[in-house]
Amino acid sequence: MKTLNLYQESGFNDLAMKKFLVHDSPYFKILNFNFQPGQELPVHSHDVEGQLSILVLEGEGEFLGADGASIPAKTGDVLVAEIAESHGIRATSQMRVVVTIAPPI
Amino acid sequence: MKTLNLYQESGFNDLAMKKFLVHDSPYFKILNFNFQPGQELPVHSHDVEGQLSILVLEGEGEFLGADGASIPAKTGDVLVAEIAESHGIRATSQMRVVVTIAPPI
Repeated sequence: MKTLNLYQESGFNDLAMKKFLVHDSPYFKILNFNFQPGQELPVHSHDVEGQLSILVLEGEGEFLGADGASIPAKTGDVLVAEIAESHGIRATSQMRVVVTIAPPI
Repeated sequence: MKTLNLYQESGFNDLAMKKFLVHDSPYFKILNFNFQPGQELPVHSHDVEGQLSILVLEGEGEFLGADGASIPAKTGDVLVAEIAESHGIRATSQMRVVVTIAPPI
């Protein structure tokens, strides 16, 4: 059993989104991404089995998808997608998100 | 791909913690538990392989463990444990947590 606090462990970077590995195991990988307004995790996908969740811990922005698709995202929003589906994130305010990938890639 | 907002989908219940199934698949199960002050998810464990994460989206309380163990919990805290380890949650303020279990049980 381990605990940590995302606010203490990671902040923001004016040059690029900040990535923090929260946990990695044979069962799942947990990542924390923090964005300044305008920063993004570009749309991408991986051709493997599995699913991922993206939880918005704080802030506002957009979930990005294939073909320029965009869905508004705000605190408390959860997105679930296949790992093989195109996904990304763009922030419009300071934004903290938690991504969980199962199985891990 | 699906999205939903935890604040819109679930609130609080004065009689007992409120449980909301966010997602269930062969890869992981995601649950949202909302607690009023004093409410708890009693300590328990399941004798199966896998791990779980508990993320505090909002509020304060304690992570509970075996033998009366207790770790303070607040917004942004993440706990990762084996599913077979004793775990629980007790709220001291209104508290929203997200639990991810992989593989799902």
